[in-house]
Amino acid sequence: MKIVALAGGVGGAKLVDGLSRLLPPEDFCVIVNTGDDFEHLSLKISPDLDTICYTLGNRDNPKTGWGLEDETWVVFKHIAELGGPDWFRLGDKDLATHLIRTHQLGQGKPLSEITRDLCTHWGVRHAVFPMCDEPVRTIVHTADGKSLGFQEYFVLLRCQPEVKFFRFTGIEDSKPVPHALRRIEESDLVILAPSNPWVSIDPILAVPGYRKLIAQKPVLAVSPLIGGKAVKGPAAKMYRELGVQPSASAVAEHYRDLLSGFIFDHVDRKELEKIEGWRIMSYVTDILMNNKVDRVRLAKEVLVFGESILSRRF
Amino acid sequence: MKIVALAGGVGGAKLVDGLSRLLPPEDFCVIVNTGDDFEHLSLKISPDLDTICYTLGNRDNPKTGWGLEDETWVVFKHIAELGGPDWFRLGDKDLATHLIRTHQLGQGKPLSEITRDLCTHWGVRHAVFPMCDEPVRTIVHTADGKSLGFQEYFVLLRCQPEVKFFRFTGIEDSKPVPHALRRIEESDLVILAPSNPWVSIDPILAVPGYRKLIAQKPVLAVSPLIGGKAVKGPAAKMYRELGVQPSASAVAEHYRDLLSGFIFDHVDRKELEKIEGWRIMSYVTDILMNNKVDRVRLAKEVLVFGESILSRRF
Repeated sequence: MKIVALAGGVGGAKLVDGLSRLLPPEDFCVIVNTGDDFEHLSLKISPDLDTICYTLGNRDNPKTGWGLEDETWVVFKHIAELGGPDWFRLGDKDLATHLIRTHQLGQGKPLSEITRDLCTHWGVRHAVFPMCDEPVRTIVHTADGKSLGFQEYFVLLRCQPEVKFFRFTGIEDSKPVPHALRRIEESDLVILAPSNPWVSIDPILAVPGYRKLIAQKPVLAVSPLIGGKAVKGPAAKMYRELGVQPSASAVAEHYRDLLSGFIFDHVDRKELEKIEGWRIMSYVTDILMNNKVDRVRLAKEVLVFGESILSRRF
Repeated sequence: MKIVALAGGVGGAKLVDGLSRLLPPEDFCVIVNTGDDFEHLSLKISPDLDTICYTLGNRDNPKTGWGLEDETWVVFKHIAELGGPDWFRLGDKDLATHLIRTHQLGQGKPLSEITRDLCTHWGVRHAVFPMCDEPVRTIVHTADGKSLGFQEYFVLLRCQPEVKFFRFTGIEDSKPVPHALRRIEESDLVILAPSNPWVSIDPILAVPGYRKLIAQKPVLAVSPLIGGKAVKGPAAKMYRELGVQPSASAVAEHYRDLLSGFIFDHVDRKELEKIEGWRIMSYVTDILMNNKVDRVRLAKEVLVFGESILSRRF
């Protein structure tokens, strides 16, 4: 079974990590949101891409959920002392990534190639694709009329502003990474990882070309919400502010026109009927991933459920 | 007595440090070579400027002669692990300087203003001016027909190639930093610090405007050579390769049309007659600066000699 996952940051990375331990590199790859990318001190940062790569390279920081393990903070401590911006701190090891990426992007090397080469050094065996090589930026439009860069909203303002809508600038001119598109074409199943639907998965689906192709494939999503709450991040708050009660079924409805199957948590089992009513096959289990054992266990269930979707569909 | 010094890196920094301990900020400033500046991993590096500022800010690394004290090397260790260029390593604390400078240059802030603001954070009280705000690059043309960026010649190739001539690209379009020019106008004495004449002092003098103004002032140089050898760096080797026997008098002759006075070492006292023959006043002393006491001692002698030059001249 050939599988492509679409993913954002932390939650998505956990499931992707589990799947990568069960599937060989030729059968599994991941396409990652780059709408969160931004520039900080003129460095090009790709938070979701790095979280996925660091996790697959077994060097993620389990305490923070982002950045590298055993990180030090000498550079940004001194940047703060020199009056530089310190609202978004980057670790010393992490900075090596950003310096190389910024330099190579400046030389005209596409982000997808840079990521591939970095992955080689990190020992990441499965292909990790940025959703596109062109810069796309998620802009958060707030109820009080402001438009904020995603990291400004997310890190600087700690998701406090009320969200009105999102815009992905540059999306019209973005193109799917050709290798990623081919992997979808060759795939048996597409998995939407348990990432934020609004700002992690939607940007990927908005790159012209992916959605149309994905719609021709069996698609399975894993809910990022448990009991109406996000495990991490502002997904639930966003649903509320956008006028939707946050719930597993709200996520299923979000992806409704694409989904063949949906995996959500036991605590939300009362929503099963509603979801199945949309002709989406449901699988209810414990979706919280507290450790690496959980990741592989959930990944196994995803694969078994995926097989059953394929067997019923064809 | 109002004094302006022209200086390059390590040797110049030592005398400038000594002078800064004897003169108040309103009476002493330094104009620094930026021909050695270069880009590494897309970071804008100003080696001489940083050496001077770190020294005046009492945070220089006495072991290496460049960079910061108590430095760590996490970022570049990881850059090397990621296959990035590691022939020019930058320390973690030092990187904070380069990141801020690169970012602010990218925003259009002039190098002189960036340097001034960094100096405020470093507690540097005396003005430190880059020779110009425009990019000038010292190119080393070698006997075997190559043209090398200065740091490529200096760090990567360890000054091994035979030098044929130097070129300062961008020099025609460079302009003296206005504040620096004004300080020269108001000065009683200009000091050429014991820096490499070819690649530290000559680039400053080549920025259109400085030389003409400096020629109207009493100028005093301190030899960077002792017994025909450079304390540090390739100055003596360059003299030889350019067909000149390296010596104190060779340095005096280098600056001959500007000099009122010249300070050189006891070991070269046999050259006194030759130098005085050019109507350049000579002062012979111990010019090696092994420690901070030496710096202040030599700076005091420079000031006393400077006073005597002024008293004879006017």
